[in-house]
Amino acid sequence: MPAIIESSVVAEIPGPLSKAAAKQLDSVWDSRAVYFVADYDKSEGNYIVDVDGNKFLDVYSQIASIPVGYNNPALIEAAKSPEMISALVNRPAVGNFPSSQWHDILKNGLLRIHPEGLDKIFTAQSGSEANELAFKAAMMLHRRKERGEGVDWTHEETSSCIENSKPGSPDLAVLSFANSFHGRGFGSLSTTRSKAVHKLDIPSFDWPKATFPALKYPLEKHVEENAAEEKRSLDEVEKLITSWRFPVVALIVEPIQSEGGDNHASPAFFQGLRDLTKKHGVTFIVDEVQTGFGATGKFWGHAHWNLTSPPDIVTFSKKAQTAGYFFGDRQLVPDKAYRQFNTWIGDPARVIMSGAVVREILDKKLVEQTARVGEVLYAELEKLAAKYPEYIKNLRGKGQGTYIAFDTVDSATLVKSMKKLFVNIGTCGVNTVRLRPMLIFEESHIPTLLAALEKVIESMSLIW
Amino acid sequence: MPAIIESSVVAEIPGPLSKAAAKQLDSVWDSRAVYFVADYDKSEGNYIVDVDGNKFLDVYSQIASIPVGYNNPALIEAAKSPEMISALVNRPAVGNFPSSQWHDILKNGLLRIHPEGLDKIFTAQSGSEANELAFKAAMMLHRRKERGEGVDWTHEETSSCIENSKPGSPDLAVLSFANSFHGRGFGSLSTTRSKAVHKLDIPSFDWPKATFPALKYPLEKHVEENAAEEKRSLDEVEKLITSWRFPVVALIVEPIQSEGGDNHASPAFFQGLRDLTKKHGVTFIVDEVQTGFGATGKFWGHAHWNLTSPPDIVTFSKKAQTAGYFFGDRQLVPDKAYRQFNTWIGDPARVIMSGAVVREILDKKLVEQTARVGEVLYAELEKLAAKYPEYIKNLRGKGQGTYIAFDTVDSATLVKSMKKLFVNIGTCGVNTVRLRPMLIFEESHIPTLLAALEKVIESMSLIW
Repeated sequence: MPAIIESSVVAEIPGPLSKAAAKQLDSVWDSRAVYFVADYDKSEGNYIVDVDGNKFLDVYSQIASIPVGYNNPALIEAAKSPEMISALVNRPAVGNFPSSQWHDILKNGLLRIHPEGLDKIFTAQSGSEANELAFKAAMMLHRRKERGEGVDWTHEETSSCIENSKPGSPDLAVLSFANSFHGRGFGSLSTTRSKAVHKLDIPSFDWPKATFPALKYPLEKHVEENAAEEKRSLDEVEKLITSWRFPVVALIVEPIQSEGGDNHASPAFFQGLRDLTKKHGVTFIVDEVQTGFGATGKFWGHAHWNLTSPPDIVTFSKKAQTAGYFFGDRQLVPDKAYRQFNTWIGDPARVIMSGAVVREILDKKLVEQTARVGEVLYAELEKLAAKYPEYIKNLRGKGQGTYIAFDTVDSATLVKSMKKLFVNIGTCGVNTVRLRPMLIFEESHIPTLLAALEKVIESMSLIW
Repeated sequence: MPAIIESSVVAEIPGPLSKAAAKQLDSVWDSRAVYFVADYDKSEGNYIVDVDGNKFLDVYSQIASIPVGYNNPALIEAAKSPEMISALVNRPAVGNFPSSQWHDILKNGLLRIHPEGLDKIFTAQSGSEANELAFKAAMMLHRRKERGEGVDWTHEETSSCIENSKPGSPDLAVLSFANSFHGRGFGSLSTTRSKAVHKLDIPSFDWPKATFPALKYPLEKHVEENAAEEKRSLDEVEKLITSWRFPVVALIVEPIQSEGGDNHASPAFFQGLRDLTKKHGVTFIVDEVQTGFGATGKFWGHAHWNLTSPPDIVTFSKKAQTAGYFFGDRQLVPDKAYRQFNTWIGDPARVIMSGAVVREILDKKLVEQTARVGEVLYAELEKLAAKYPEYIKNLRGKGQGTYIAFDTVDSATLVKSMKKLFVNIGTCGVNTVRLRPMLIFEESHIPTLLAALEKVIESMSLIW
């Protein structure tokens, strides 16, 4: 592989065939965000191939959502299984008419890797939907407690909610953090705080936003400052919970703020959030849409925190290849049927795929591999950062598997140039480069990535 | 088939195996809404089989979402295709890295049946998501026009939207009708007005609700009254648009209010909505999640209206086996990339299935069949209604394919009893029975349905 980057001919990316395909697509489907058009039949493992025949080491992985590699044989087998064909062809309203296999599909798949203490599941189709379902569960629980167990709904409640009025449609808030991303539905978008392009012109709920700790790097040189910063954020959270104009019923947080710039906080900070939410009866929702499924070197990002008691709800999507939320407390199941419900409640076909992903991860010990490879990768990046401190700043993700990121001078130019050296890599935040390799990324791939990165940085430092 | 209903032994539905399976499922996944647990391997065509071996004529079709029958051979073929296996295994972030087949999958599938004038598409995963995406497109278009073409976003806008504050997060409304159902996300739920069980305890936007015309049946005996009723509703719509406390940017309506009770209105009423929305620059969204894909005897429910100009947006899901919206005006594509975007933007696997559904519907002329069979079915139900006028009231859906419904005395008891006679049938509204057979429902199935219905009604009339 390193041979590729020694090529003297720099390809035009996207190439002519990609451009033509994107243009054709654009007549019926907005294709302005297309980087290149892919040939998935030729893609394999960690490598994605485009229609021009360019082969890229993929450390972006479909916005962090390919778990175990392109054309993974175990996934192909699952895709060909009779169970899958039935799920594709006989799509059920799974809440009303689940298949006889549904229990085992969940039990032998997603439930094998449920977060500790959260052994029940609600299935969904996207991270955004999973988060909104979590909010709704928290809201119904809050009102159930207010109402008192067994107290029935009043006529005033049931009639006013149809009018979108109180008391049936109450003012209830979900607290989120500055720079967070939790999705693009009207509820989830009200908790997303990363970029204007996600939010502009869309009405939102009047929900509170707390500052996320802005840690200084390297962490070991800023211990006291960072602890003070986290304390400040926790105090702000508590103040918002206790003083907001209406009840804050849930708090949602990513273990690592991904879209917002790969912002980390310490286990102590998250323990603080657990304590505060418990103290004030706020549902603690951990959004593991991007951090879940192993890339941090543990199956769940929040497993790094060693919490004294688990979160109330953990949401997932992306590498799960399906979506939903885990929970433990039965009270999070609403008091009546059909309150948390929709026609499909997820997609059994995608849940079957997630089962195959889980088996592959466990069988091949890919979380352990990611932890190991991540350590080597981080150490290599540290060396490069020492050489080019202006171009690799605030290196972060130590001990977090391959979930590594750094700030740079111009992330857009950097990732564009990386594509010319056949590495597909992504950005986040303002000028952050984020690494999101798959769980099958190995030590042997590191030199390709590092060589391309050094070559690009060298060129940038020469020209600017 | 009619032999079944002559059986003297009435089965317990759900049977013991269904009950046991639902109970097992309930330990990890809320199963309170389960009618029975299905054996999809044994289900075929119009018939669903449960784990106890009971075989039901299915005129509910997974909440109106099975298009062409269980284990349809053409769909099985699509499910086994190399294209499908790739889509399942290599799930793309389709906005960034679409496959080389993506254009053709759309072009040879969903776009073959696009509503007249609406030849562009945005893909999604559920009807609720499709509607919310439509709202967002309408909102961004409204603000784009207010801002003026080419005028860039201000710093005040981009910074305030992160705070969920004006002017970046403006107050903009979507108008919907009483008894409508448009989904369960926080935005779509704010336009849903059918039942408290969907809405209670969930915060909603302060959006306007207009009365939907309450037509009297039989239509031919109430021509003037019904016209006046529709005029009243249209006047109310215009008043709400012009006097609401903030701009009404979109109006959403179902061609037939389904969840809310199978409420119909005349083509003239919908032409009135088209005229009013055009006059006031309001995006006219037709929610064809339940009415689309042929059950009304035309491919799209709104095709019955002969509008002078098409709706702005038509949303779809359910029988499409995927979801999304069609549109024509390029201005509904936001001014910048990534504004209407998410990781997956639908699911190519499900879009491939929808292509197979489209081919099957067109090849087998199933829309025409549904129109023809619906006429016979309606005529038969009219006879039964004449015999049992108290039990079949306000029969509706004439000329609307098999999209037929009637009010009755106790719809819950009726459909429960129908299951004991091996007909799976659904309810909606307050005491409405809705027929939602698949598009492969034939004349030969009518006697089974009618015989069971008559037997149940006879028993009810005897006992009550």
